[in-house]
Amino acid sequence: MTNKTWRVGVAGLGTVGGGLLQFLADRPDFAPAGDRAVVTAVSARSKSRPRTVDISGLTWFDDPVALAGSSDIDLFVELVGGSDGPAKAAVETALKAGKPVVTANKALIAEHGAELAALAEARGVPLMFEAAVMGGVPAVKIMREALVGDDIDSVAGILNGTCNFILSEMEKTGRSFADVLREAQALGYAEADPTMDVGGFDAGHKISILAALAFGCAPNFAAAEIEGISNVELLDIKLAKDLGYRIKLVASASRTDHGVAVKVHPSLAPLDHPLAQAGGALNALFIEGRRVGRIFVQGPGAGAGPTAAAVAADIADVMTGAVRPVFQAPAGELKPFIAVDPSRTVGKAYLRIMVRDEPGAIAAISETLAECGVSIDSFLQKPVEGAGGVPIVLVTHATPESNLLDAISRIEKLHAVLERPRLLRVARI
Amino acid sequence: MTNKTWRVGVAGLGTVGGGLLQFLADRPDFAPAGDRAVVTAVSARSKSRPRTVDISGLTWFDDPVALAGSSDIDLFVELVGGSDGPAKAAVETALKAGKPVVTANKALIAEHGAELAALAEARGVPLMFEAAVMGGVPAVKIMREALVGDDIDSVAGILNGTCNFILSEMEKTGRSFADVLREAQALGYAEADPTMDVGGFDAGHKISILAALAFGCAPNFAAAEIEGISNVELLDIKLAKDLGYRIKLVASASRTDHGVAVKVHPSLAPLDHPLAQAGGALNALFIEGRRVGRIFVQGPGAGAGPTAAAVAADIADVMTGAVRPVFQAPAGELKPFIAVDPSRTVGKAYLRIMVRDEPGAIAAISETLAECGVSIDSFLQKPVEGAGGVPIVLVTHATPESNLLDAISRIEKLHAVLERPRLLRVARI
Repeated sequence: MTNKTWRVGVAGLGTVGGGLLQFLADRPDFAPAGDRAVVTAVSARSKSRPRTVDISGLTWFDDPVALAGSSDIDLFVELVGGSDGPAKAAVETALKAGKPVVTANKALIAEHGAELAALAEARGVPLMFEAAVMGGVPAVKIMREALVGDDIDSVAGILNGTCNFILSEMEKTGRSFADVLREAQALGYAEADPTMDVGGFDAGHKISILAALAFGCAPNFAAAEIEGISNVELLDIKLAKDLGYRIKLVASASRTDHGVAVKVHPSLAPLDHPLAQAGGALNALFIEGRRVGRIFVQGPGAGAGPTAAAVAADIADVMTGAVRPVFQAPAGELKPFIAVDPSRTVGKAYLRIMVRDEPGAIAAISETLAECGVSIDSFLQKPVEGAGGVPIVLVTHATPESNLLDAISRIEKLHAVLERPRLLRVARI
Repeated sequence: MTNKTWRVGVAGLGTVGGGLLQFLADRPDFAPAGDRAVVTAVSARSKSRPRTVDISGLTWFDDPVALAGSSDIDLFVELVGGSDGPAKAAVETALKAGKPVVTANKALIAEHGAELAALAEARGVPLMFEAAVMGGVPAVKIMREALVGDDIDSVAGILNGTCNFILSEMEKTGRSFADVLREAQALGYAEADPTMDVGGFDAGHKISILAALAFGCAPNFAAAEIEGISNVELLDIKLAKDLGYRIKLVASASRTDHGVAVKVHPSLAPLDHPLAQAGGALNALFIEGRRVGRIFVQGPGAGAGPTAAAVAADIADVMTGAVRPVFQAPAGELKPFIAVDPSRTVGKAYLRIMVRDEPGAIAAISETLAECGVSIDSFLQKPVEGAGGVPIVLVTHATPESNLLDAISRIEKLHAVLERPRLLRVARI
């Protein structure tokens, strides 16, 4: 317990950065081990923008890279965002200068994590990113530190609060995706350009990071199979519920004999399952370990308070002087990421098939499914006003993805079928 | 990353100790930072007892205290159990000798934690106890490390898997407490002497530890208000369910302006609440922080696998060289534990009143409740075969505990009332 004062440089002064500055101004001695953390220098896009926190006493840098390399700071906090550009340059600069880095940047870690880990470990400094995944829920710490004595088989959960809010609101209010998205943007739950969130990319970054921590491989965002929620229709939300499911954007990573599968899909979760019950902007995650069994964590996945608290916890961890690899193993020993061929995936699926109201439609569809080796677990035909045809929905038993896609292509060509069947996965949770 | 080999001494070779020995024998290099952990010496009650793991190559100590003080070990793992006696003496001996200690002993930490923390911090060595609370769910790490940037207002949850199993089975099978306890003992879920578990003391130890971590006070098991499950009747499980609740043994710690309240009670949780849905031997915990919001964690709270994994994670943490206070603050700076006067507690309650089937019973009871300032939220009268009278059950609005106890004493004396009303709390979750 050295009672050192750490001079902290913060790049990025949005809500998280502002929350962090306020917190450290109020409680510089928050870390129990006795060291203090004081923000001495900052960088942001605009120096003069009105802010809730006073930065007049701090050294200003126009360029985050210059801040990162400044000899006047002992620890660099990166809240700029973006997988490349100034965020990456600044983090590299800080690490090369031997300064510990704390970041909330999921894109940066998911896309360049192994490279940055190698840099950090070569210099013997920590690279921390608790705030990148699940906000204030310490998913990274749990995976990296608490489960170090375990072999993880899978992680699966809800990692994007914006999508969870939109899907929950669609179900609750019966409004369309586009309507609810506009409301979420007005409330500040969704960005002006919502692509990162609703496209599933944000969840994809987060699950790529968790996969690396779980399986000891380098993070590999490029290998993730990603589908967002912008094509989720109210009709499917309603029909899935009739079948006993709720549609959630589920991110999952699992390890099989064939490799690692990292996926983000709108997926059906049974109504009585904890993931189905995590509503609003909540995040939730199951971790399945061979020794520890199934662990479930849930909490607010974003927001200034939780995210700033996660950054502060990382700063406190840096102060302890703990030496750990950035991921599950030193960067040089991370296993290669071998992606499972998606067509080899086996799982239950939901199919919605819009048909003309004519005799023989069900017979033709069920024959085609049988020919493709797809067997049916539950089935629902229900007239829906204004749906443009009659929806036939069914949930299959576990089926290889290749059989499913084959069946879908063949069903699409049936005379009674109006459009390509809608495929959603049933979450394996 | 020093690539040192840590010689580990393990006292106590039950299922957890055996699991740990096997794990470290299989994977001495499990810790990612590069150090190795090798068990070199052990102590247990009987040297010759048949074991699944071979201890013939290890140094044997009849006395755990002698093992703890041996200069042939670098780290001492205490799995003996018990708040005093050899466990305490051994931990003290190891700490005084400057050796890091990892323990799964909740009684020891709940009853002597502050004293042991002072000893550990004076010698500058870690005292770790992740395995003491919630098995493989890293509740201690979350409270101590991840929420260091937050102010915690309350923690509440299910911390004893044996009680949760018994209550779940009573509801599922309609059998009595005594019947299900016998089954739990036969399955190995309950000890031959089940008092620690079913009396609520085990949960009391765990919540006392969490309270200390949450509020920065010394753990104070003696101040905990503890009620076990041995008086929970099947009748109350059924009637509570009719009112929309499930009875769980809920341990809680909250901070108010008047002090800290640490409690263990059989309590009603709404059926759709995550705590009500954590069945079987699961443990579950809500943590409410001012910055982070509400975090929920759930998982297996006991068992050789999860507990040994938690011990292993603590060993890995020791190897990182991190320096932290044992609790939320250095032992010398822990706040005094000021217990809230229980009569000042305000909450909703469940009352079951057994009455003679005669006119005026409900009128007399509701008048008495009104006179005592207890107002009723929901009410149920339902004939139950073989219950010896007619049960009237009600859930109150939030009421000061003193008013409730006053009402109960007065209702007990009413002519129509057959016995002292049964009081259960509605969990504040």
